Amino acid sequence: MTISNTVCRLAARPIGLPTPSNFEVIDEPAGHPAEGEFLVRVEYLSVDPAMRTWMNAGRSYVPPVEIGEVMRAGGIGRVIDSRHPDFAAGDEVYGMFGVQRYAVSDGSGVTAVDTTVAPAPVHLGALGISGLTAYFGLLDIGRPRPGQTVVVSAAAGSVGSIAGQIARINGCRAVGIAGGEDKCRWLVDELGFDAAIDYHASNLRAQLKTHAPNGIDVFFDNVGGAVLEAVLSRLARGARVVICGAISQYNAAGELRGPANYMQLLVARASMTGFVVFDYADRYAEAVAQLANWLRGGELRSREQVVHGDVGDFPDVLLALFRGDNTGKLVLALDGRS
Amino acid sequence: MTISNTVCRLAARPIGLPTPSNFEVIDEPAGHPAEGEFLVRVEYLSVDPAMRTWMNAGRSYVPPVEIGEVMRAGGIGRVIDSRHPDFAAGDEVYGMFGVQRYAVSDGSGVTAVDTTVAPAPVHLGALGISGLTAYFGLLDIGRPRPGQTVVVSAAAGSVGSIAGQIARINGCRAVGIAGGEDKCRWLVDELGFDAAIDYHASNLRAQLKTHAPNGIDVFFDNVGGAVLEAVLSRLARGARVVICGAISQYNAAGELRGPANYMQLLVARASMTGFVVFDYADRYAEAVAQLANWLRGGELRSREQVVHGDVGDFPDVLLALFRGDNTGKLVLALDGRS
Repeated sequence: MTISNTVCRLAARPIGLPTPSNFEVIDEPAGHPAEGEFLVRVEYLSVDPAMRTWMNAGRSYVPPVEIGEVMRAGGIGRVIDSRHPDFAAGDEVYGMFGVQRYAVSDGSGVTAVDTTVAPAPVHLGALGISGLTAYFGLLDIGRPRPGQTVVVSAAAGSVGSIAGQIARINGCRAVGIAGGEDKCRWLVDELGFDAAIDYHASNLRAQLKTHAPNGIDVFFDNVGGAVLEAVLSRLARGARVVICGAISQYNAAGELRGPANYMQLLVARASMTGFVVFDYADRYAEAVAQLANWLRGGELRSREQVVHGDVGDFPDVLLALFRGDNTGKLVLALDGRS
Repeated sequence: MTISNTVCRLAARPIGLPTPSNFEVIDEPAGHPAEGEFLVRVEYLSVDPAMRTWMNAGRSYVPPVEIGEVMRAGGIGRVIDSRHPDFAAGDEVYGMFGVQRYAVSDGSGVTAVDTTVAPAPVHLGALGISGLTAYFGLLDIGRPRPGQTVVVSAAAGSVGSIAGQIARINGCRAVGIAGGEDKCRWLVDELGFDAAIDYHASNLRAQLKTHAPNGIDVFFDNVGGAVLEAVLSRLARGARVVICGAISQYNAAGELRGPANYMQLLVARASMTGFVVFDYADRYAEAVAQLANWLRGGELRSREQVVHGDVGDFPDVLLALFRGDNTGKLVLALDGRS
């Protein structure tokens, strides 16, 4: 029996914001697992800012998605047919299955998902790559000490919301930068941030002065651009700037904007360091155990915004991410409900 | 008896390149040392790129020189009258005496200069703040390991020429970036750099690929701008970028240029760190001893470009620095010969 798959392939490299025409969504027969492989029915797709960078040609921390290839995406699904010794039909698994309904996998980078710990979407968010990114970026690169001030940009996003909470759990003053009153209220009222700054509404530099009066010891940056510059101008002596992302720049069609005031790193004797979560794979288990503990204890809250649809909805959901529509982790559930 | 002093004061803040009209050079009576002070006849002035940043208003690692103040400068001179217990007439001393012929000092930041070790100008260069900046910036911030590739910008300058040599002494591949064939030849033939790149003559990125084929592990940056961007595009995994200066930006009259491709820090899992040599004051003695050892042993070469003149020549000498006229440490000797 041949299963019909729906696949979203990269059709053209975007200039600026992606559009639906950058993708081609087609039905085609699903592959058959060979010996050592298995077939997964994908149920949830992780929708992430980094996807935009994977659509560009050129050197990055992972190879670009080539034209005609299945769009890269992390996902959770159920094994429905297996010729692999470590995976059995019925297993719930996480892997880079791509934007498609069915994926054949050899098990590389695939991990079991325990939905008794938390529902599947949480395993894409707080207990998934988003949570791991926040954990290692903040603790290993940012190295905040109790009492220090940690500022997080895109703080209502999947990574930022976890990073700010980990800062709070570690005894830091957590200040979030987010777009809109609702997100800011959520950060302070629900997640326990000490303060939140709406970058739409206010003078960012003045607000940073108010909410980080002794300067910023750690900046966890997901945004770049004007936000990065504003924070650099308020660094405390010896500050650490963690470069996690630069969502303000991913869709720039023209010249990219670097931090014009990067010499503030000298003034503050500060460092700016990039990292990639995949480098920490051998410590994922430690981090997931800790994150799960915090979740169970109620110290850490996870929020997922699950959009119901199918593979063909992926381009629109990705655009919603870049509009900043989501609060918390954006997930596309491939259940056909919309 | 009143001694006549010649003083160079900041008259106006420059926009872009400084001009003589930014300074006022006047004759006035020298001060008299009070109890606990002494009078120095300044003999040599250190002429440094950082001086341009001191002329700007606003937050930096030191307060700006205010309009009407004596222009800040490090210098070496002889004590000619002392009411200070630790300094006697005849002592040769280093301190921030300013651009003037005579300075009254209370001894803060003043150190003895041993001209039996090396002539006075060397104590402004390889054995002075320039050498110390290279030493701590390269070894403490850059942390090069033997066999790694170290790239230095403004490599024929006072700091860069020492930094590259320390890299070589530590078993690294030292690659210098400098302006002009003569400087490049000097770096390779005289100072033992493994390669030198003339940024005037050639495609910088292609040259970096040729001379740092395995990527750049440490970048000691004195320049910023296009040079910084070119190097960022060639970083090795885990690279350290040492932010020492940004001479290409100091005289920018318009918008400053940040590294548009700073996200290469993420791609390379690299860090970019600023430092200020003054923070290492309690380790100066260790560093000077090491630098002097290397000098004595012939492993380290020092070059000073001594311009003879008087206080009124300072603005022109500063401009020569920004034209890149000098090779090695630029010093203004206040001996009236020109």
